[in-house]
Amino acid sequence: MERVYNFSPGPSMLPLEALETAAKELVCYGSSGTSVMEMSHRSKAYIEIFEAAVALIKELMNVPDNYKILLMQGGATAQFAATAMNLMGGSGRADYVDSGSFAYGALVEAKKYGRINVVASSREDNYTYIPKLDATTFDKGADYFHITTNNTIFGTRYTTLPDTGAVPLAADMSSNILSEVYDVSKFGVIYAGAQKNIGPAGVTVVIVRDDLLDRELPITPKFLSWKQQSANDSMLNTPATYSAYLAKLCLEWLKKLGGVPAIEQQNIAKAALLYDFLDDSKLFDGTARSEFRSRMNVTFVTGSAELDDEFIKGAAKAGLINLKGHRSVGGMRASIYNAMPVEGVKALVAYMKKFEEAH
Amino acid sequence: MERVYNFSPGPSMLPLEALETAAKELVCYGSSGTSVMEMSHRSKAYIEIFEAAVALIKELMNVPDNYKILLMQGGATAQFAATAMNLMGGSGRADYVDSGSFAYGALVEAKKYGRINVVASSREDNYTYIPKLDATTFDKGADYFHITTNNTIFGTRYTTLPDTGAVPLAADMSSNILSEVYDVSKFGVIYAGAQKNIGPAGVTVVIVRDDLLDRELPITPKFLSWKQQSANDSMLNTPATYSAYLAKLCLEWLKKLGGVPAIEQQNIAKAALLYDFLDDSKLFDGTARSEFRSRMNVTFVTGSAELDDEFIKGAAKAGLINLKGHRSVGGMRASIYNAMPVEGVKALVAYMKKFEEAH
Repeated sequence: MERVYNFSPGPSMLPLEALETAAKELVCYGSSGTSVMEMSHRSKAYIEIFEAAVALIKELMNVPDNYKILLMQGGATAQFAATAMNLMGGSGRADYVDSGSFAYGALVEAKKYGRINVVASSREDNYTYIPKLDATTFDKGADYFHITTNNTIFGTRYTTLPDTGAVPLAADMSSNILSEVYDVSKFGVIYAGAQKNIGPAGVTVVIVRDDLLDRELPITPKFLSWKQQSANDSMLNTPATYSAYLAKLCLEWLKKLGGVPAIEQQNIAKAALLYDFLDDSKLFDGTARSEFRSRMNVTFVTGSAELDDEFIKGAAKAGLINLKGHRSVGGMRASIYNAMPVEGVKALVAYMKKFEEAH
Repeated sequence: MERVYNFSPGPSMLPLEALETAAKELVCYGSSGTSVMEMSHRSKAYIEIFEAAVALIKELMNVPDNYKILLMQGGATAQFAATAMNLMGGSGRADYVDSGSFAYGALVEAKKYGRINVVASSREDNYTYIPKLDATTFDKGADYFHITTNNTIFGTRYTTLPDTGAVPLAADMSSNILSEVYDVSKFGVIYAGAQKNIGPAGVTVVIVRDDLLDRELPITPKFLSWKQQSANDSMLNTPATYSAYLAKLCLEWLKKLGGVPAIEQQNIAKAALLYDFLDDSKLFDGTARSEFRSRMNVTFVTGSAELDDEFIKGAAKAGLINLKGHRSVGGMRASIYNAMPVEGVKALVAYMKKFEEAH
């Protein structure tokens, strides 16, 4: 069976090279006589794999030494709660920007643990842009300030980070981590589910500045405690061992390719192919405001639900799958994460051209 | 490289047949053109896999219709907190039996969320047995009564379940789920990390009686909410998709083999091989009291730390790996879960005989 171009918003495409290595090593890893899945997380062989994954994140993101890198479970949704539980031990207040469904989900979850100030929202306009921030509305006594750097469903992205002064910036970076260069030192915490740009679902990366590890609420479940996981090198309990191994293979692929600066250039080029076509198209329209366009999730519509449907079905037949947009936006969404090759985007644009000419 | 017999307490051996199928399907699953790891958890192809895993658990454990089967993340450690958070909405009190390290960990975690009554403990005797239970000490108003059906570290197992009357029995069954026939209707909740008898680490099975889904504390993180996960067929957020697929392959293997009644007979026979040898041995002693001996984790010592060490190293050279006991017990531990073939146990006994003759 030939592999297709998979535009799924996540879980999503992984580098073929990583999959092929995993297939080869699945039954027997090196000279271990076992599968990686069968290794004790306390074994020397497995700890080497796990530590290599952490070291690659540190290297690829240029993470400063005063940050801990944790590999946890539960996805970003678990971190919606964990962020509040681990940081709300000060004033019990936090600022949130409401820029999309997951940003909103994060703040609703945080309300269980403290007082949430929504500093800005684009909800009324169906999140077609990143709301404008006015620093005079920021709570200077907040325990943290939360943003979602890329909004998967709506196809928007922060182009500049808010200056939150002494208040730690906490970011859900699930859908654009490792896709562009970020200065980690500007953040107090970064977290991301793996299933878009890191590896398969099941592992969650948390990067936290070490001075923030003493603020947790007493009700924090220990497996969600950044402090306890940090003290135990993410092995307070059994981690998702095989998912972390796959993440390592994907991170090795990214490193070989030239790291984040190199993939960022590819991602800019890939997104430009689609947006340039959309801007010239008489049939298709992008749904996100152009100044906030995501490089990872490109959302567009024809204006007709029937045509959208025909487009999606025809694309799938042509080996371009999972292009249906989220129900809250409708139309189409092409998720073009790191592992989507430029050839896949070119094939999509070619199909869009053909479709436009036919209609 | 030849595969070894892996006596790891978890993650542990998986059925070779499941690993070989996974290897073959890793890059391209069926006619999907993608890896299972790359599939959206909302896709038809993936939902089929996930639902098949759930249906197999229902069939293999004969789960009654008024129970929900959830596939969650975070392992049993997450469920230590989740059990309390999801059930403590009544009196805010629970009974716990302290029969091992994980049983103790569960009750310490639960103390964050309510008042815990330790009805019995074998901690003073280093958990060499399941403590005797006296029903007059049970709290009739407790929200639940918690046990750990098999104690991985100490090699003990409940031979009879406590009669808790109207108080729901909650069980951590991580290290012996699917290894023997249980009457699920006797439990309010059963939970288990996958990495011993279900599949690879990363997925956690929760089986909960549906009338217990309305008792959660308001501080329950939504991804840990049995009620919300139940209403969303375990897909409130992205599950550990690939781990669940592997669990399905392992469950299919178990079904083909004859299900739980058949594997229970194998497990009894495997354990008997080791215990019979230990009872006759002049060198080795079992550490668990014989009436509570686990069928999954067989703990033993020579009485000399040097000999233990020599034994473990020699065994590893002979392809019998991960026999070192937990530091709190010392000596050796042979974890012989479902996927350990009887040939592996025979090879271990043969090695023990040879070692005994040489010393």
